[in-house]
Amino acid sequence: MKLVRAEIIAIGDELLYGQIMDTNSHWISQELDLVGVKVVRKTTVGDNRTDILAAFAAAEERADLILITGGLGPTQDDLTKPLLAEYFGCEVVEFPEAVEAVTSFFKRRGREMTQLNILQGHLPSCCTYVPNEVGTAPGMWFERGGKYWMSMPGVPHEMKKLMKDFVLPTLPKVVALPVIYHKVIKTAGIGESWLADLIKDWENNLPEHIRLAYLPSLGHVKLRLTAFGENLKTLEDEVDEQIEEVMPIIDKYVYGFNSETLETAIGNLLKNAGKTLALAESCSGGYVSHLVTTVPGSSAYFQGSVVPYHNQFKESILGVQSQTLETFGAVSEETVKEMANGVRKLFKADFGLSSSGVAGPDGGTEEKPVGTVWIACAGEGFVETRKLQLTQDRMLNIQQTGVAVLNLLRVCFSGNNK
Amino acid sequence: MKLVRAEIIAIGDELLYGQIMDTNSHWISQELDLVGVKVVRKTTVGDNRTDILAAFAAAEERADLILITGGLGPTQDDLTKPLLAEYFGCEVVEFPEAVEAVTSFFKRRGREMTQLNILQGHLPSCCTYVPNEVGTAPGMWFERGGKYWMSMPGVPHEMKKLMKDFVLPTLPKVVALPVIYHKVIKTAGIGESWLADLIKDWENNLPEHIRLAYLPSLGHVKLRLTAFGENLKTLEDEVDEQIEEVMPIIDKYVYGFNSETLETAIGNLLKNAGKTLALAESCSGGYVSHLVTTVPGSSAYFQGSVVPYHNQFKESILGVQSQTLETFGAVSEETVKEMANGVRKLFKADFGLSSSGVAGPDGGTEEKPVGTVWIACAGEGFVETRKLQLTQDRMLNIQQTGVAVLNLLRVCFSGNNK
Repeated sequence: MKLVRAEIIAIGDELLYGQIMDTNSHWISQELDLVGVKVVRKTTVGDNRTDILAAFAAAEERADLILITGGLGPTQDDLTKPLLAEYFGCEVVEFPEAVEAVTSFFKRRGREMTQLNILQGHLPSCCTYVPNEVGTAPGMWFERGGKYWMSMPGVPHEMKKLMKDFVLPTLPKVVALPVIYHKVIKTAGIGESWLADLIKDWENNLPEHIRLAYLPSLGHVKLRLTAFGENLKTLEDEVDEQIEEVMPIIDKYVYGFNSETLETAIGNLLKNAGKTLALAESCSGGYVSHLVTTVPGSSAYFQGSVVPYHNQFKESILGVQSQTLETFGAVSEETVKEMANGVRKLFKADFGLSSSGVAGPDGGTEEKPVGTVWIACAGEGFVETRKLQLTQDRMLNIQQTGVAVLNLLRVCFSGNNK
Repeated sequence: MKLVRAEIIAIGDELLYGQIMDTNSHWISQELDLVGVKVVRKTTVGDNRTDILAAFAAAEERADLILITGGLGPTQDDLTKPLLAEYFGCEVVEFPEAVEAVTSFFKRRGREMTQLNILQGHLPSCCTYVPNEVGTAPGMWFERGGKYWMSMPGVPHEMKKLMKDFVLPTLPKVVALPVIYHKVIKTAGIGESWLADLIKDWENNLPEHIRLAYLPSLGHVKLRLTAFGENLKTLEDEVDEQIEEVMPIIDKYVYGFNSETLETAIGNLLKNAGKTLALAESCSGGYVSHLVTTVPGSSAYFQGSVVPYHNQFKESILGVQSQTLETFGAVSEETVKEMANGVRKLFKADFGLSSSGVAGPDGGTEEKPVGTVWIACAGEGFVETRKLQLTQDRMLNIQQTGVAVLNLLRVCFSGNNK
């Protein structure tokens, strides 16, 4: 089955000059992907007649569905509406229903409207008027030669409402959407190329209709399986079968599926086991605590943390021995062990995690260069440690330490370290 | 003067399918805007030979400078490199220097490399090899017919380093850039429309060749002045004159200029005064500590922090009175006062900051709905507090609390609260 091909066009000088980040196109992509529409191109153009008309023409060549955001304000530099009229060869005329909607929008908010606002109810005669209940610029739907166009305002919540209320419900009525199924495997603790190397035989044997994508981000790699076919249940089963096959090879790196994050995965592990967590962060400086507490409901298992940025507080608050610090230094296996045990005791937690390292850019030595980090996980009767050799970049070192610390807890928890 | 026209091409199915948000194109736009290069188009294409080649050809028609991100990973779906070779009509060959760089990159990290990684040092023979010090995919620079091309990895920090170290310094050597001068005034603690209202007379009197842009972000508003002209020194003087004029109206909201952040501004205040800081974070969960410790050298003034996520640790570690918690609750002015004083004492710091609030989505009551946050700043002989009424969104509440806490320290420090 041939997929419906879509192009997203974002219009506005402010997008090209970097004054506003185009989050609309990203959101639209996600929504279209979920219903099996294939986005083949995203285009951003400025408030310029020639560029906009050229973008329309190129999109019509490439795509079956063209979604346009922006350029619908009441001011003169907003060109989308007159140019759509020109492109489709019709006039901008008054749509009484649209004028009425704009007028009552202003009335509801007790605000005065200008002549410019009234003109927002004038639309290309060849479009279908789509009411915008949360703003003043209407949506416009066009059909020509079996292709479908929708023009929406650039204000994100207005665009989203028009997508949800009109575009997404209309699509299945006018085009044939495929049966599609996605599943994402989330991994941590292994780089993209090592992972690719581990699973290359499995990957090469995937059936034609199941596609694999590697989606790396800091300290994580996501594997996305996408299956196309006739029957959703069959696709789910086929994808699950493939996952069952690959899991024994990679399971020690897998922390979850789909929208799960390392933070939520660890939260679920702790919650389900009725266990609690405390953190002692030196080089990660509060970042791990921040990750843990971004999860709603984390107070069920997170007891608290200490950032003992100076050594004296590693002693006075966490009970690290001064001799340990003198003999081995703050960035050492011995110190992170005592920190993890100490914070576990301080917060009466089941697990204590700790980090200590040289985040940089200063503080490196020959023996412990910038990027040297020790982390530990302490639990009842054990302390696991890891040494990391990270980068020259302070921010990256903090972030990668964060992922590594959480992943160490996961590994300790699932006993994969034994 | 004719501006240099640029196109940004982002490559990757993951961008079209909405799995990754393209923040690169936005960042590149901003950087190009600063040096007076006019971005005329942004294009996103998938990992597809025909589409990528078509995007190259269209960009070469439209732009003088083409910046490409993505599609440079070691796996099979990454096509940028072979297609650039095809487009420019040359072969992919071994660049010994590039192979050496990849090899030593892995050696430095003590990690093994695969055959796929070695191939990352093979590049189109017609490109100039641009070393990537922070990753394994090199940059590639091409010149043809007076137009310039740069291909960079999609990993944001790698792309940024290549832009800063190579592209931005190279541009003035190969193309004519306008004389342009920017200065950014950084404010916190006031919303965009209030700020606009405060300075509207000044704004209306700005000379034609000095442009003002409002750049709002979470809890901050940046005011960017951009001057165009003939002579850089004259532009600097003119902009500084304008800033001198507006400062008396807004100075209590201004924490710095240009690349200064609230974190670095506070760091400088503390360092210059020889003062130290400690934090007690409840609802902000470590986020403020994270912000403070992202600043290189923050150990000079940051003593440490405690995240007492459960009330018992507010008592046992910070010495908050159990009666205070019982009478007023954890989210109260009285509690944050005692937390700020307690953490100041615990870490022997000059200033103690604290937060306690209902981050959400659960935990709200009629009296203290989600988004209710108390913050405090304690110093020698004083405690300042603020109540914030934030949003329904947990992540936003954490981030806005972070900005508000740091800004409260700035306000207390500069005595503007008196």
